[in-house]
Amino acid sequence: MSRYLDDFAVGQVYRTTGRKRVTAEEIRRFAGEFDPQPFHLDETAARDTFFGGLAASGWHTAAVTMRLLVDSEFKAANGLIGAGFDELRWPQPVRPGDELRVETEVIEVRASKSRPDIGFVKFRMRTLNQDDVAVQVGLCNLVVPVRAKT
Amino acid sequence: MSRYLDDFAVGQVYRTTGRKRVTAEEIRRFAGEFDPQPFHLDETAARDTFFGGLAASGWHTAAVTMRLLVDSEFKAANGLIGAGFDELRWPQPVRPGDELRVETEVIEVRASKSRPDIGFVKFRMRTLNQDDVAVQVGLCNLVVPVRAKT
Repeated sequence: MSRYLDDFAVGQVYRTTGRKRVTAEEIRRFAGEFDPQPFHLDETAARDTFFGGLAASGWHTAAVTMRLLVDSEFKAANGLIGAGFDELRWPQPVRPGDELRVETEVIEVRASKSRPDIGFVKFRMRTLNQDDVAVQVGLCNLVVPVRAKT
Repeated sequence: MSRYLDDFAVGQVYRTTGRKRVTAEEIRRFAGEFDPQPFHLDETAARDTFFGGLAASGWHTAAVTMRLLVDSEFKAANGLIGAGFDELRWPQPVRPGDELRVETEVIEVRASKSRPDIGFVKFRMRTLNQDDVAVQVGLCNLVVPVRAKT
């Protein structure tokens, strides 16, 4: 189901993403390409760091979150196009074997001042692990099309 | 050179990252795993979308930005550990062949209220393409260790 600006309303909650298990191999592979720091690459080297053990790059957590959203029903008619975040935090690291899912809630719906064909939906998104601990929280602004008048 | 909280000061500017060219193949590969939407996957399908042509996922831009920072001199003694962003935006998309670099500026340095061994450095970061157009801007909070008293 593809949604237009008019279909979003403050307070709507989506708890519909699938779950994604993040493996140590995936953590190391992502980090090897984009964030090659010891705590993301090697269990032994990670022990004496801030993280105290292997942890996923925050950008890996963000990327997995995006995939879960793209595969879910939380979609606008033009796809999932983020203009940016008002806030993005990683309260806890993702560890090998963690299973992630995403919850979203619409907190603002507004028309664009410069373009009548689009608007913005601000939503709070929380990425949770298998213990319901938040590993990423954010306030995202999505670009959403206005339904064409017929 | 590894920096401690005491080594950071408001106004410091780093223009020292390398440059990374982002290819169409890399855009498609990242998107295939983490953001499989038509405008990130296929040049032809992308033409009729919001982007009007193939564009990198914002998370791909973020990941490339991270790699450029990790490979640069902009580092704290514990590495580059981001607690989160106060703001993160993608003003323009990254296109195939774009060559990215990152500029950072320290805008706040503060001690942790709860942990005497760490502090936070807030910095503005801008990812620029070969035409000096910003493709990502953010306000990031870095976790930085305090130098141990001797």
